[in-house]
Amino acid sequence: MLFQVQIKVMPLKDLLDPQGKAVLGGLHNLGMNGVQDVRVGKHITLQIEAADEAAARTVAEDASKKLLANAVMEYFEIEFVQA
Amino acid sequence: MLFQVQIKVMPLKDLLDPQGKAVLGGLHNLGMNGVQDVRVGKHITLQIEAADEAAARTVAEDASKKLLANAVMEYFEIEFVQA
Repeated sequence: MLFQVQIKVMPLKDLLDPQGKAVLGGLHNLGMNGVQDVRVGKHITLQIEAADEAAARTVAEDASKKLLANAVMEYFEIEFVQA
Repeated sequence: MLFQVQIKVMPLKDLLDPQGKAVLGGLHNLGMNGVQDVRVGKHITLQIEAADEAAARTVAEDASKKLLANAVMEYFEIEFVQA
Protein backbone atom coordinates (compact mmCIF):
# COMPACT_ATOMS: atom_id res chain seq x y z
CA MET A 1 0.00 0.00 0.00
CA LEU A 2 1.07 3.54 -0.68
CA PHE A 3 1.02 5.92 2.26
CA GLN A 4 1.34 9.66 2.14
CA VAL A 5 3.18 10.93 5.19
CA GLN A 6 3.79 14.51 6.23
CA ILE A 7 6.73 15.32 8.46
CA LYS A 8 7.11 18.66 10.17
CA VAL A 9 10.62 19.52 11.32
CA MET A 10 10.84 22.60 13.54
CA PRO A 11 13.57 24.25 15.61
CA LEU A 12 13.31 23.26 19.28
CA LYS A 13 11.15 25.66 21.30
CA ASP A 14 13.96 26.83 23.57
CA LEU A 15 16.35 27.65 20.76
CA LEU A 16 16.69 30.92 18.96
CA ASP A 17 15.42 30.71 15.38
CA PRO A 18 17.36 33.32 13.36
CA GLN A 19 15.39 32.62 10.16
CA GLY A 20 12.14 33.18 12.05
CA LYS A 21 13.46 36.41 13.54
CA ALA A 22 14.42 37.63 10.07
CA VAL A 23 10.94 36.85 8.73
CA LEU A 24 9.40 38.62 11.74
CA GLY A 25 11.47 41.71 10.93
CA GLY A 26 10.37 41.53 7.31
CA LEU A 27 6.70 41.28 8.26
CA HIS A 28 6.99 44.27 10.59
CA ASN A 29 8.63 46.24 7.78
CA LEU A 30 5.61 45.38 5.64
CA GLY A 31 3.38 46.87 8.34
CA MET A 32 2.07 43.62 9.81
CA ASN A 33 2.65 44.53 13.41
CA GLY A 34 0.09 42.05 14.69
CA VAL A 35 2.58 39.24 14.12
CA GLN A 36 4.41 38.62 17.39
CA ASP A 37 6.49 35.55 16.75
CA VAL A 38 7.63 33.50 13.76
CA ARG A 39 9.35 30.16 13.62
CA VAL A 40 10.46 28.58 10.37
CA GLY A 41 11.02 24.88 9.83
CA LYS A 42 10.72 22.28 7.12
CA HIS A 43 7.71 20.45 5.81
CA ILE A 44 8.43 17.17 4.07
CA THR A 45 5.95 14.88 2.34
CA LEU A 46 6.94 11.29 1.71
CA GLN A 47 5.22 8.64 -0.35
CA ILE A 48 6.01 5.33 1.26
CA GLU A 49 5.22 1.89 -0.09
CA ALA A 50 4.71 -0.40 2.90
CA ALA A 51 2.66 -3.35 4.05
CA ASP A 52 0.68 -1.41 6.65
CA GLU A 53 0.57 1.92 8.45
CA ALA A 54 2.84 0.73 11.29
CA ALA A 55 5.56 -0.23 8.80
CA ALA A 56 5.21 3.09 7.01
CA ARG A 57 5.47 4.93 10.32
CA THR A 58 8.67 3.05 11.15
CA VAL A 59 10.18 4.11 7.83
CA ALA A 60 9.11 7.72 8.36
CA GLU A 61 10.59 7.81 11.87
CA ASP A 62 13.79 6.23 10.65
CA ALA A 63 14.06 8.76 7.83
CA SER A 64 13.42 11.64 10.23
CA LYS A 65 16.01 10.51 12.74
CA LYS A 66 18.70 9.55 10.26
CA LEU A 67 18.37 12.24 7.64
CA LEU A 68 15.63 14.82 7.92
CA ALA A 69 15.89 16.20 11.44
CA ASN A 70 18.90 17.14 13.53
CA ALA A 71 17.86 16.07 17.04
CA VAL A 72 20.22 18.56 18.66
CA MET A 73 18.37 21.51 17.20
CA GLU A 74 15.08 20.22 15.84
CA TYR A 75 12.07 18.08 16.70
CA PHE A 76 9.78 16.36 14.23
CA GLU A 77 6.14 15.33 14.03
CA ILE A 78 4.76 12.67 11.70
CA GLU A 79 1.25 12.74 10.34
CA PHE A 80 -0.54 10.44 7.91
CA VAL A 81 -2.82 11.87 5.25
CA GLN A 82 -5.37 10.07 3.10
CA ALA A 83 -3.75 9.00 -0.15
CA MET B 1 -6.62 37.58 21.01
CA LEU B 2 -3.54 35.63 20.19
CA PHE B 3 -3.82 33.13 17.35
CA GLN B 4 -1.33 30.44 16.46
CA VAL B 5 -1.26 29.90 12.71
CA GLN B 6 0.62 27.26 10.77
CA ILE B 7 1.52 27.91 7.17
CA LYS B 8 2.74 25.18 4.87
CA VAL B 9 4.62 26.35 1.78
CA MET B 10 5.30 23.60 -0.77
CA PRO B 11 6.67 23.53 -4.31
CA LEU B 12 3.87 23.34 -6.87
CA LYS B 13 2.91 19.79 -7.76
CA ASP B 14 3.91 20.04 -11.42
CA LEU B 15 7.35 21.43 -10.71
CA LEU B 16 10.52 19.48 -10.18
CA ASP B 17 11.70 19.63 -6.57
CA PRO B 18 15.49 19.21 -6.61
CA GLN B 19 15.76 19.26 -2.81
CA GLY B 20 13.18 16.50 -2.56
CA LYS B 21 15.01 14.46 -5.21
CA ALA B 22 18.25 14.82 -3.24
CA VAL B 23 16.54 13.64 -0.04
CA LEU B 24 15.02 10.72 -1.94
CA GLY B 25 18.49 9.71 -3.13
CA GLY B 26 19.81 9.98 0.41
CA LEU B 27 17.03 7.79 1.79
CA HIS B 28 17.64 5.15 -0.87
CA ASN B 29 21.34 5.20 0.01
CA LEU B 30 20.32 4.54 3.61
CA GLY B 31 18.41 1.48 2.42
CA MET B 32 14.89 2.90 2.67
CA ASN B 33 13.72 1.76 -0.71
CA GLY B 34 10.06 1.89 0.26
CA VAL B 35 10.14 5.66 -0.10
CA GLN B 36 8.96 6.55 -3.59
CA ASP B 37 8.68 10.30 -3.61
CA VAL B 38 9.82 13.20 -1.45
CA ARG B 39 8.89 16.84 -1.59
CA VAL B 40 10.41 19.42 0.69
CA GLY B 41 8.85 22.73 1.60
CA LYS B 42 8.69 25.17 4.47
CA HIS B 43 6.62 25.09 7.61
CA ILE B 44 6.07 28.42 9.30
CA THR B 45 4.28 29.09 12.57
CA LEU B 46 3.06 32.61 13.29
CA GLN B 47 1.67 34.08 16.48
CA ILE B 48 -0.75 36.77 15.45
CA GLU B 49 -2.48 39.26 17.72
CA ALA B 50 -5.83 40.09 16.10
CA ALA B 51 -9.41 40.92 16.99
CA ASP B 52 -10.85 37.68 15.63
CA GLU B 53 -9.96 34.66 13.52
CA ALA B 54 -10.97 36.31 10.26
CA ALA B 55 -8.59 39.21 10.89
CA ALA B 56 -5.80 36.80 11.81
CA ARG B 57 -6.43 34.83 8.61
CA THR B 58 -6.19 38.02 6.56
CA VAL B 59 -2.82 38.80 8.12
CA ALA B 60 -1.58 35.24 7.53
CA GLU B 61 -2.68 35.31 3.87
CA ASP B 62 -1.09 38.70 3.38
CA ALA B 63 2.16 37.49 4.92
CA SER B 64 2.15 34.36 2.75
CA LYS B 65 1.51 36.26 -0.46
CA LYS B 66 3.91 39.11 0.19
CA LEU B 67 6.81 37.39 1.88
CA LEU B 68 6.61 33.69 2.66
CA ALA B 69 5.59 32.03 -0.59
CA ASN B 70 6.68 32.65 -4.15
CA ALA B 71 3.47 32.11 -6.12
CA VAL B 72 5.37 31.24 -9.29
CA MET B 73 6.89 28.16 -7.70
CA GLU B 74 5.00 27.49 -4.48
CA TYR B 75 1.55 27.18 -3.00
CA PHE B 76 0.61 27.68 0.62
CA GLU B 77 -1.98 26.37 3.07
CA ILE B 78 -3.02 28.10 6.27
CA GLU B 79 -4.21 26.24 9.33
CA PHE B 80 -5.23 27.49 12.78
CA VAL B 81 -4.18 25.60 15.87
CA GLN B 82 -5.49 25.94 19.40
CA ALA B 83 -3.33 28.39 21.31
